Amino acid sequence: MRFSRLYAPTLKEAPRDAEVVSHKLLARAGYIRQLTSGIYSFLPLGLRALNKVAAIVREEMNRAGAQEVLLPMVQPADLWKETGRWEFYGKELLRLKDRKDSDFCLGPTHEEVITDLVRHEVRSYRQLPLNLYQIQTKFRDEIRPRFGLMRCREFTMKDAYSFDRDDAGADVSYKSMYDAYTRIFRRLGLRFKAVEADSGSIGGSFSHEFMVLAETGEDTIAACLAENCDYAANLEKAEAVCSLDDCPECCGQYAKVATPGAHTVEEVAAFLGVSPRAIVKTLLYDVDGRPVAALVRGDRELNEVKLKNALDATEVRMASEEQVKAWSGAPVGFAGPVGLSVDVIVADRELRSLTGLIVGANEADAHLKDVDISRDVPSATFADLRNVGEGDVCPRCRTALTLSKGIEVGHVFKLGTKYSKAMKATYLDEDGKERIIVMGCYGIGVSRIVASAIEQNHDADGLLLPPSIAPFEAVVVSLAGKDPAAAAKAEDIYRELGALGLDVLLDDRDERPGVKFKDADLIGLPMQLVVGAKGLERGVVEIKCRKTGTRAELPLQGFAETFASFRASVWKAWGLSVSEGERG
Amino acid sequence: MRFSRLYAPTLKEAPRDAEVVSHKLLARAGYIRQLTSGIYSFLPLGLRALNKVAAIVREEMNRAGAQEVLLPMVQPADLWKETGRWEFYGKELLRLKDRKDSDFCLGPTHEEVITDLVRHEVRSYRQLPLNLYQIQTKFRDEIRPRFGLMRCREFTMKDAYSFDRDDAGADVSYKSMYDAYTRIFRRLGLRFKAVEADSGSIGGSFSHEFMVLAETGEDTIAACLAENCDYAANLEKAEAVCSLDDCPECCGQYAKVATPGAHTVEEVAAFLGVSPRAIVKTLLYDVDGRPVAALVRGDRELNEVKLKNALDATEVRMASEEQVKAWSGAPVGFAGPVGLSVDVIVADRELRSLTGLIVGANEADAHLKDVDISRDVPSATFADLRNVGEGDVCPRCRTALTLSKGIEVGHVFKLGTKYSKAMKATYLDEDGKERIIVMGCYGIGVSRIVASAIEQNHDADGLLLPPSIAPFEAVVVSLAGKDPAAAAKAEDIYRELGALGLDVLLDDRDERPGVKFKDADLIGLPMQLVVGAKGLERGVVEIKCRKTGTRAELPLQGFAETFASFRASVWKAWGLSVSEGERG
Repeated sequence: MRFSRLYAPTLKEAPRDAEVVSHKLLARAGYIRQLTSGIYSFLPLGLRALNKVAAIVREEMNRAGAQEVLLPMVQPADLWKETGRWEFYGKELLRLKDRKDSDFCLGPTHEEVITDLVRHEVRSYRQLPLNLYQIQTKFRDEIRPRFGLMRCREFTMKDAYSFDRDDAGADVSYKSMYDAYTRIFRRLGLRFKAVEADSGSIGGSFSHEFMVLAETGEDTIAACLAENCDYAANLEKAEAVCSLDDCPECCGQYAKVATPGAHTVEEVAAFLGVSPRAIVKTLLYDVDGRPVAALVRGDRELNEVKLKNALDATEVRMASEEQVKAWSGAPVGFAGPVGLSVDVIVADRELRSLTGLIVGANEADAHLKDVDISRDVPSATFADLRNVGEGDVCPRCRTALTLSKGIEVGHVFKLGTKYSKAMKATYLDEDGKERIIVMGCYGIGVSRIVASAIEQNHDADGLLLPPSIAPFEAVVVSLAGKDPAAAAKAEDIYRELGALGLDVLLDDRDERPGVKFKDADLIGLPMQLVVGAKGLERGVVEIKCRKTGTRAELPLQGFAETFASFRASVWKAWGLSVSEGERG
Repeated sequence: MRFSRLYAPTLKEAPRDAEVVSHKLLARAGYIRQLTSGIYSFLPLGLRALNKVAAIVREEMNRAGAQEVLLPMVQPADLWKETGRWEFYGKELLRLKDRKDSDFCLGPTHEEVITDLVRHEVRSYRQLPLNLYQIQTKFRDEIRPRFGLMRCREFTMKDAYSFDRDDAGADVSYKSMYDAYTRIFRRLGLRFKAVEADSGSIGGSFSHEFMVLAETGEDTIAACLAENCDYAANLEKAEAVCSLDDCPECCGQYAKVATPGAHTVEEVAAFLGVSPRAIVKTLLYDVDGRPVAALVRGDRELNEVKLKNALDATEVRMASEEQVKAWSGAPVGFAGPVGLSVDVIVADRELRSLTGLIVGANEADAHLKDVDISRDVPSATFADLRNVGEGDVCPRCRTALTLSKGIEVGHVFKLGTKYSKAMKATYLDEDGKERIIVMGCYGIGVSRIVASAIEQNHDADGLLLPPSIAPFEAVVVSLAGKDPAAAAKAEDIYRELGALGLDVLLDDRDERPGVKFKDADLIGLPMQLVVGAKGLERGVVEIKCRKTGTRAELPLQGFAETFASFRASVWKAWGLSVSEGERG
């Protein structure tokens, strides 16, 4: 492709509403344009990158025995009513009516459609296992679309669904997808981590998220540093281990202390001259309509998903100011568990063995000291409610955990029979007995991967893409100017690289060298070859690795060999090998 | 791919609502499944065929210098309001509201979105010409979806849009797309015809439709049979030439005749003992709210698009029974132009020189005879209003026209400035003067092509697909049964064909030979290779061309050569050569 004919309108300034680096750079480099909030057009460079990701996903899905299908985007409401999700899904499900006033939605996911398909075709155990996938446009009406391709409304997703005879079969399918995902993200050249994830209300037995590691990620990953332990989990799932060194002797009977105007943990700690660790936060929640108090140590963070799971609840909502006053009889900041009349009091389990704690007194400007939750709040139950933090240890091997930020790009899920039971997707086993199919579902955010690759890889000059994702592997920058011999040489090299099987861009535009270099850095192709009169005089072409900045001169004599060796070093810098980049 | 692992649920019976052969066979052969009215899922075989069509479309679009993009499916109403189509488009445009109650639609086409994109990026003549295309899901809420993939609501389309400085540039872009379409349909192995089409209310200067020829087509094509003339047009466009041999001498003054109970042309002709050619049909229309009478000879068919164009109208609607009575003062069947008080009387131009005609008398049970429209209806204007029919001649060379049926699979359109003017898509020319961009648009119905290929190619046993579209080029039918040596040989041949670059299916299922042969014919792959013990004893494998039924025995010694020669004959039977089938 010639740059002079490429529709890649680069911008000096990022769009004003672009908050994250991938959004800024994708817009500036002419990869994407916003149509409206959360809805983007892919320009040629962006689409090429998207298609490269999709091609690797497709190859590895096929290798794992999954079969590609294409399901409709517009889905009838009836199917969603069968599983109860028409009511349950909330406003992310964009509902619409056709000209006959029938209810439809735009597919945010395809469990219902695929289960409907399979229940009509699969009769016998001999047709199982089955794994069907598609790469297709999804729509989720996010309440706050933002961050460009990271959290948009219309996006490209790979979604796969497995159908097995039983739990053991579903585990095999799950493992096969887990392995395929590992191959996919490795081939994409991304630093990633597979983490245990909360399987939440879907009720499956296990689930993993694949996270691209990037400081700008919205998710936190806790991973074990030990060499022989591969424990890693997201915050909702990572178990907080109770360490015992906080376990002091008993304390005396609790007593009220005045804490005028001290509402927050910090204020109370400062006023009483104690550490926040000595204080208990009492957080009031409306859980499925019932008043609940959740307790964590003053220096800890409550994780609402853990709270929800501990109570087997559907909806967990922070109490309003009015509810706090009604339930505790005190202004916000003074609720405490002792004598509190709510339906449930649940405490983080590290509070079970702590004594001498400070809690709210359920009256303005007062706290209680010398509290022992186990002794003084007999109705309290204990559960893992808090986020792990720096200093926590691995629940498997007790080595220190490390926390890092990540972007969720894949999710594998053992669904069990949630959908197949509701929609009566069954098969006949060897004995002619009807059984419910066991399902799994497996998603990859194809368009989000392009953004997350850039969140992970960029510098002040622009974005950087791994050679497996980049729209072109190399750009040949022609500095020929008015020199026809140099222009011809640039064409030669462009053709030669094409003949080697590379996707190459030739910058043949009538622009100043500075503009060409700036654009080459901005659009982030892995290799830049510079063909100019000066180099040609010495019989060389300059080459630069965009990622490492390494430069070399390739002699025109024996160009193919020295180029191949430089190319291999570029792929290696991305942790990849050229051979696995060739179409499989 | 192994048939034992392929999700291709074949059916003995077609779905009850399947009316046309492509719908029946695509369902029976396990290519597609209906989700709901006009909305289909593509199963692996169907998706592979769809992707093969898309790949050829993509290659030829790229070759023509067009660049692929991906535009959103969900489009904001504001853009459609700019062009006036939000009001004008009618119910085929599926409108919806997002969670913030903003208006959106599902894209039935992308003129607005692409023009919006380009007007923000293109500033200078140096950025033109530009041709952007996408292959993407469209939604049109058809009033009566039917015929499977032929007329559905959600479908895959290739849509391209060209942007030029001026009319001359737009003509070059148009020609380039016309040529690309010709290459595409030729490579697809379809018998097709490019016909002149009505450019209608969009107001462009020209337009062609690409029609796949098939008896079941909904459209009629008029084509010239002369060797040196390539005239072909659809019915809306094909000009009806006035032949002069019907021109008699003058007639006397008209007079009323009683025609009790004779409402139709046939009844009047029978009652008066004349040919229908002597009678004039007076058809009353509500044209943009005004009463209009349209006249054609009794044996002709009025074409409403021609009427609409003749009157430069927006909407043409047959008058209701009440309107007929109010305007003509007579029951339906007795309206006539003489003394009729409507706003416009327009007659087909062959009526200009005819005399002695019979028309309705605008009263019950009466007609007028000896009418001469030119003499007796002074307010009448004349225009080409009728469909051409058998016996009509080519407007260019006066050779006989032939009529055939076709399925529209592509449409190229010179749009002019309709959208660019409304949306202010301009550029600065060399003199710094602002000018309006001249546009063209070019569609291909990718999913409809799969169906139309089958409408054109099928027999009693199943469908037939050209090797360029078929999901696999060959099926290896293993008749090994319990014979491990024969099974191994089938595997060898399967692998050998794969190594030759063919997409091959191996029927390794544990099924009777009869089932395998039936399925092979049903799914319609171009070649069938049969590997059985009997042939192997003689050192041969049987091969059959699905299209011609030609069979041959390929010796295992020198298999590659004899196979290559048979393969070439199969491609030739489809009018194709193997080499142009290789990925370009």
